[in-house]
Amino acid sequence: MIKVGIIGSTGYAGQELVRILLGHKDVEIVWYGSRSYIDKKYSEVYGNMFNIVDDKCMDDNMEELAEKVDVIFTATPQGLCASLVNEDILSKVKIVDLSADFRIKDVATYEQWYGIEHKSPEFIDEAVYGLCEINREDIKKARLIANPGCYTTCSILSMYPLVREKMIDVNTIIIDAKSGTSGAGRGAKVANLYCEVNESIKAYGVTSHRHTPEIEEQLGYAYEGSPLLLNFTPHLVPMNRGILVTAYANLNKDYSYEEIKAVYEKYYADEKFIRLLEKGVCPETRWVEGSNYVDINFAVDPRTKRVVVMGAIDNLVKGAAGQAVQNMNLIMGLPETEGLLMPPMFP
Amino acid sequence: MIKVGIIGSTGYAGQELVRILLGHKDVEIVWYGSRSYIDKKYSEVYGNMFNIVDDKCMDDNMEELAEKVDVIFTATPQGLCASLVNEDILSKVKIVDLSADFRIKDVATYEQWYGIEHKSPEFIDEAVYGLCEINREDIKKARLIANPGCYTTCSILSMYPLVREKMIDVNTIIIDAKSGTSGAGRGAKVANLYCEVNESIKAYGVTSHRHTPEIEEQLGYAYEGSPLLLNFTPHLVPMNRGILVTAYANLNKDYSYEEIKAVYEKYYADEKFIRLLEKGVCPETRWVEGSNYVDINFAVDPRTKRVVVMGAIDNLVKGAAGQAVQNMNLIMGLPETEGLLMPPMFP
Amino acid sequence: MIKVGIIGSTGYAGQELVRILLGHKDVEIVWYGSRSYIDKKYSEVYGNMFNIVDDKCMDDNMEELAEKVDVIFTATPQGLCASLVNEDILSKVKIVDLSADFRIKDVATYEQWYGIEHKSPEFIDEAVYGLCEINREDIKKARLIANPGCYTTCSILSMYPLVREKMIDVNTIIIDAKSGTSGAGRGAKVANLYCEVNESIKAYGVTSHRHTPEIEEQLGYAYEGSPLLLNFTPHLVPMNRGILVTAYANLNKDYSYEEIKAVYEKYYADEKFIRLLEKGVCPETRWVEGSNYVDINFAVDPRTKRVVVMGAIDNLVKGAAGQAVQNMNLIMGLPETEGLLMPPMFP
Amino acid sequence: MIKVGIIGSTGYAGQELVRILLGHKDVEIVWYGSRSYIDKKYSEVYGNMFNIVDDKCMDDNMEELAEKVDVIFTATPQGLCASLVNEDILSKVKIVDLSADFRIKDVATYEQWYGIEHKSPEFIDEAVYGLCEINREDIKKARLIANPGCYTTCSILSMYPLVREKMIDVNTIIIDAKSGTSGAGRGAKVANLYCEVNESIKAYGVTSHRHTPEIEEQLGYAYEGSPLLLNFTPHLVPMNRGILVTAYANLNKDYSYEEIKAVYEKYYADEKFIRLLEKGVCPETRWVEGSNYVDINFAVDPRTKRVVVMGAIDNLVKGAAGQAVQNMNLIMGLPETEGLLMPPMFP
Repeated sequence: MIKVGIIGSTGYAGQELVRILLGHKDVEIVWYGSRSYIDKKYSEVYGNMFNIVDDKCMDDNMEELAEKVDVIFTATPQGLCASLVNEDILSKVKIVDLSADFRIKDVATYEQWYGIEHKSPEFIDEAVYGLCEINREDIKKARLIANPGCYTTCSILSMYPLVREKMIDVNTIIIDAKSGTSGAGRGAKVANLYCEVNESIKAYGVTSHRHTPEIEEQLGYAYEGSPLLLNFTPHLVPMNRGILVTAYANLNKDYSYEEIKAVYEKYYADEKFIRLLEKGVCPETRWVEGSNYVDINFAVDPRTKRVVVMGAIDNLVKGAAGQAVQNMNLIMGLPETEGLLMPPMFP
Repeated sequence: MIKVGIIGSTGYAGQELVRILLGHKDVEIVWYGSRSYIDKKYSEVYGNMFNIVDDKCMDDNMEELAEKVDVIFTATPQGLCASLVNEDILSKVKIVDLSADFRIKDVATYEQWYGIEHKSPEFIDEAVYGLCEINREDIKKARLIANPGCYTTCSILSMYPLVREKMIDVNTIIIDAKSGTSGAGRGAKVANLYCEVNESIKAYGVTSHRHTPEIEEQLGYAYEGSPLLLNFTPHLVPMNRGILVTAYANLNKDYSYEEIKAVYEKYYADEKFIRLLEKGVCPETRWVEGSNYVDINFAVDPRTKRVVVMGAIDNLVKGAAGQAVQNMNLIMGLPETEGLLMPPMFP
Repeated sequence: MIKVGIIGSTGYAGQELVRILLGHKDVEIVWYGSRSYIDKKYSEVYGNMFNIVDDKCMDDNMEELAEKVDVIFTATPQGLCASLVNEDILSKVKIVDLSADFRIKDVATYEQWYGIEHKSPEFIDEAVYGLCEINREDIKKARLIANPGCYTTCSILSMYPLVREKMIDVNTIIIDAKSGTSGAGRGAKVANLYCEVNESIKAYGVTSHRHTPEIEEQLGYAYEGSPLLLNFTPHLVPMNRGILVTAYANLNKDYSYEEIKAVYEKYYADEKFIRLLEKGVCPETRWVEGSNYVDINFAVDPRTKRVVVMGAIDNLVKGAAGQAVQNMNLIMGLPETEGLLMPPMFP
Repeated sequence: MIKVGIIGSTGYAGQELVRILLGHKDVEIVWYGSRSYIDKKYSEVYGNMFNIVDDKCMDDNMEELAEKVDVIFTATPQGLCASLVNEDILSKVKIVDLSADFRIKDVATYEQWYGIEHKSPEFIDEAVYGLCEINREDIKKARLIANPGCYTTCSILSMYPLVREKMIDVNTIIIDAKSGTSGAGRGAKVANLYCEVNESIKAYGVTSHRHTPEIEEQLGYAYEGSPLLLNFTPHLVPMNRGILVTAYANLNKDYSYEEIKAVYEKYYADEKFIRLLEKGVCPETRWVEGSNYVDINFAVDPRTKRVVVMGAIDNLVKGAAGQAVQNMNLIMGLPETEGLLMPPMFP
């Protein structure tokens, strides 16, 4: 049995980690960390876990935890993981960090977009960006995984083949993303109250959302390392889960649907968690809810010579906890899909 | 491997059966029946099953099916199972009928409340009412299971200990139930359109809903077979899944919370799928979503000398497909919880 | 022009008052009180009012306000109005209090259910319970109106004719009520976050909700002043607005639908805001949204000899702000329906 | 009193017309047309109108109607208005057509995108595109108004100043639009059932939605009549009402926020129904619900040299019925805002 601890287990992503790991046959959760609810029973914080999880919430003592577990997940606000990690800890356990601390290679970029000082820049280089479908081999060898952001996962996987194969003008990429409200977290804010979110849609963080540089950096790597700039606009949608990305770019020549499909298949045909939909079928978040799937499709517009790519994920699964478990499977030498093959739940 | 066939696999309950059975390690689904979608790929009807289920939809030929499978699930409108079943079929396979055809022992009562003629009343007697927590031993020996209705499951399990132990005046029972919209089925009706259901709540079938006699009959059995009459009022709630029952009855004497709790524990303490909540905690449907759990609690009102009992289930799981699998496990000699231990999914 | 001030204008009920009064041809709002947002533009707190209301939020100085306006609305937490009001103020202005401070005639009952000391019990006697359909003539002469609670309004109006005419056993009344989430207010609480309320239903305050004694007191007056006890259970529904009450009681004899309907018509046939639906039509909250209507209907159950009464209102309109304006119209000598005839908005 | 008739009064847009016109002091509705519900009481089709509208539904006899009313609204499927209208009718009444029949000047384009033959192309030339803020003077003189589409209204008004003033490269316009579900109509389709729409978001009609040529044509007129091509992608959002448009375009030079704002003010500062939000405030559909307002704002991205424009409307009001009334006011010589000044309703 692999022993794991979760620092930040009472956020939505942390709780989803718990749900998924409870169904993972090789894993035992031994530490439910939560600074806000120390000593409170986990099942009082999340009633779905009543009679399932009997543990109480623990603090975020990473040093102590490193003695007890094989893998630590940090599902905490930006800055916490970077402030806790050190060489001693990393010599003992693997860490999958669900925050943004180790996603961006350039410290200045991180500090600019996140507005905080990075407390352990010395580990940024060795951290591996945990997008399994792209960095699988590096992940297997890593001690420290930077688990990608939810918007980022959906955006990058949707656009990766087109960028990698240089089929589009990378300076024309526009990503219009829509997220369910669990992405906003469980903090008590007026803006996230039921009556404020329900029956409304809005954009936010326009031209300034923190996932923008993360998408740019990763797509840049796919583009032979050349930097690229794009527009990313997130929207808040009145639903619990799900991210839909609608992305636009100018095609470099008159590609047919089939030519582009072939390129997607080149990269994704063997990927268990990526589903390339049939021609004409648009991804819908309801079809991936509760699962680790990414549904992708696209349309070619011969009038404007653009491609419109659509991708759908469950933000809490492939966009957070599921991907974290996928990373754990890889670094621990387990089958990559272990514990992740639950079909999407509908309705 | 147990081979199963599903007649009516494209309704919401049928699809939920598919979802649950795909995660059941001892079961293989070999027949996806659907009169409405014959020859269409199942995954075109339910996009969540894309790349998971490759089968096409089949007709509802129960005779042919009986040759191929060990268990048949019928998740079809009232009357269909009764019109298809016969002794030859029952000699070959077990049947779990999710419709109401074999739930009510008195044919006249069935025909009056459902307004249709019963086509095979000769099997009513042998059919076992598949409420596992109450009829477990009979279920194990049955060929034909009448899987309980969704409202019924939640109502009966909530009230059973009080009735069985004669702690309440059974002539004062009032059951006010609230259901998510998946209970209304996938038929294309104006009344079930998004804009009609959203942002509204209504009662329906007031004093006339078909689950009323089913609840009365089963609670009557618990009450030493004496008939009883009650009020049952269902409501439609703008959410996908979930049933909440709020039930009222006059207490026969001044019982304390603890005395009543002891009786619930007597019947349910060892029941894996029934969770008796801590004092003061009200059941909420979000905490059981996607799972086979029944969450139960109650409050005693010393002012009115009534007990208010609350029960919550996922109507598609414990109220339909999950309970059907629980019944299948029992009749096939498998562990009762096999394939049913997924934690509730939240949010 | 009647000048009005609103203390507590930035809660949901306060904002609904603003919306309704903006459409009232005889009223000018001159004071947008809000302790939490003093000096902030009202339209920054409620974006719907951008370019419509240019005022900034003011404090809750009732003495100053009394010099400036004809009517003060207090849409504030329990206790505030009672702590501010005095004879001098009441000699200058009319007050419509949307809190519970003056609803309950017995101070001890108030202090017990609300858990706070009443700061001006000397005004309780003269305060008139502002349920216009029942206390119309007294309201016209009042200085201080206790605007009824949302659940209370719907519950009382649904049951009043039956109680008044002694058609039911008043000791058997059970009121099961369901409310949209705006009733929970705009405070930042985890329990009211979108993801916590969405896709769920729960009861709360079971046997202990504060509207219970208010309903009992008012129905008691209808019952010749005899005290009565009942069960009231509120539920939280994932929708913004609306209250549905489903109430049960034993009929004192075998009344027909038509006999009962005649009694409802006796009391309500001329009431502009009460709509007695056609036989067989159940009230639905969607049909009253945004309006001051109360939709009422009932079913007789000959099996159990009970009547099931259903009532639907918009909790923010007839359950709060609309009724407050109706009261204002009455005390100021305006037509009772002025500013309140907007049709319900659907969908 | 202006007498009006509505052909197609039982769709969502038709019913919203009824709601708005009931509050219009100069209008009397004398004809509630509805082919599907002939002879049924209007209030049985829309329960919100119980005790408010007593009329029964009528057929769609435009000739008879032309004798009885001053203005006819057609809120019907594409093709119907074009098949009914003739010179005799137009000589007697004004027509505001909410369908697409007269929106597109080029018949071939209409027939290609809509897939039906145009039955009265002879009236296309005289029909005036009823976007009041842009074509006000022509509307006042018209007999036949082509009331704009919902997506179109929001898209054009959001982009008009930028196109008209040539601040953007019109070949880079991308419009990503999100709509509430009332836009899908009241037809009984599985895809629009509550459980199918709820908790999901999807794009549809990608590269092929019929509002695309309408937007292109109108923006082309703003661009000195030069044709332009753009991408328009609609999405279905789980909410009743509201459209949010997020539009992208390359700026022709390094404009500041203030320079662009000045241009928006040039065109819209005096427009009662267009609200230019404060810098940094994103439009949200909740703030316009139930009203005729268009909320617009934008962000400049100095990194990519693009502008991101956002616009929000209520699809049933400014996107359909409200705009139709605004057009009626103009052609009948009434104040343009008559009956349309209701504040947005929240929550």
